[in-house]
Amino acid sequence: MPHTYQFARPALTVDIVVFGLDEDDLQVMLIQRDLPPFEGEWALPGGFVHVEETLEEAARRELVEETGLKDIYLEQLYTFGAVERDPRERVVTVAYYALVNLEGHDVQASTDARNAAWFPVSDLPKLAFDHQQILDAAHARLRGKVRYQPIGFELLPDRFTLRQLQRLYEVILDRELDKRNFRKKVLAMEIVKETNEIEKDVAHRAAKLYRFDKRTYDRLMKQGFNFEI
Amino acid sequence: MPHTYQFARPALTVDIVVFGLDEDDLQVMLIQRDLPPFEGEWALPGGFVHVEETLEEAARRELVEETGLKDIYLEQLYTFGAVERDPRERVVTVAYYALVNLEGHDVQASTDARNAAWFPVSDLPKLAFDHQQILDAAHARLRGKVRYQPIGFELLPDRFTLRQLQRLYEVILDRELDKRNFRKKVLAMEIVKETNEIEKDVAHRAAKLYRFDKRTYDRLMKQGFNFEI
Repeated sequence: MPHTYQFARPALTVDIVVFGLDEDDLQVMLIQRDLPPFEGEWALPGGFVHVEETLEEAARRELVEETGLKDIYLEQLYTFGAVERDPRERVVTVAYYALVNLEGHDVQASTDARNAAWFPVSDLPKLAFDHQQILDAAHARLRGKVRYQPIGFELLPDRFTLRQLQRLYEVILDRELDKRNFRKKVLAMEIVKETNEIEKDVAHRAAKLYRFDKRTYDRLMKQGFNFEI
Repeated sequence: MPHTYQFARPALTVDIVVFGLDEDDLQVMLIQRDLPPFEGEWALPGGFVHVEETLEEAARRELVEETGLKDIYLEQLYTFGAVERDPRERVVTVAYYALVNLEGHDVQASTDARNAAWFPVSDLPKLAFDHQQILDAAHARLRGKVRYQPIGFELLPDRFTLRQLQRLYEVILDRELDKRNFRKKVLAMEIVKETNEIEKDVAHRAAKLYRFDKRTYDRLMKQGFNFEI
């Protein structure tokens, strides 16, 4: 049923930058478009906001519909409103970014039957709309935030080695870190706790596994910290 | 002329939290509503986004129309989309925050002929809609940002004393700072430069005036800093 308003309204969408971390790279989830405009090109998952749902609900619904991902860390990034960003009509999009641990989540091309896949942030295809700009903003936010919130930890499994944690920071910040210095600083923050477990099925010497201290994590999420690395 | 769409669309607005700094307080600009809902109550300046303007253009237009303020520092804050935040219909609002130096800007109840006034953040009237929540979010952002960007400087006149600069940080952070320690840290950042001028028309001993070093300012705006105070 059509809806009529006194004044013209922009369409409102959500788009989500989903970051995942594998052994080597920061990855991002893309969807191949099966309709014009930009048919066949890759784009961020997303879609129209329904009038009866919040923005975050819209983002979570679209993620499930297009990628099968659910129950993941999601945060609002920025709202993009350039007048010509969509060739069809005026569309304003509220962008979110999400962090997932690749070990725990299967990704599928979901109900919409579109092609969904992970790409390394350092080697992306050309993206539809202004999605490269949105992705760049999300990457910059992530780089900035890991320095004062324990946010990057969402990208790791429950039990992890300090090597994995260091790799997470190196991949997000895109530079190498000094191993000894890094470990000293992380352990001083008391956010990670040693477990009695060690890595399994590895070719190199099995390293000790660590876990997060949830209470310290929640406190630091709230008050922030200065992780000068 | 009415506009018809296939699916229902939320209305899209902008709201702006304008901060100003006087001798004693962090102030915020409010508008008294002259129409229902919340008639007679105070609210943030703002209004509907036109389809042919960007979000920031909408925010700047509304600021001029409702308060007369122009050419001020403006930054997007967050987009608020709770389903029932406006009793009339679904309205999503993109919130901005603005910083103005009270010395340089006259505020007027402008074309809309509504009452506009400054209120101290520490002593506000009851606000319409979810505007208290938006204001709290803006204040939290400001408190967070002054610790890693030289953003608060927008609230000061061109020439200022170190006492004024310290007062700015104290008002934003809502706590007293040690004078000697503060000065040492600020001067070490090289963002403020001594001038040959001193304060005029003051009862106490006239203090030296400082100015910002624009180049250092721009660099720090880009790369951030850690202002641990």
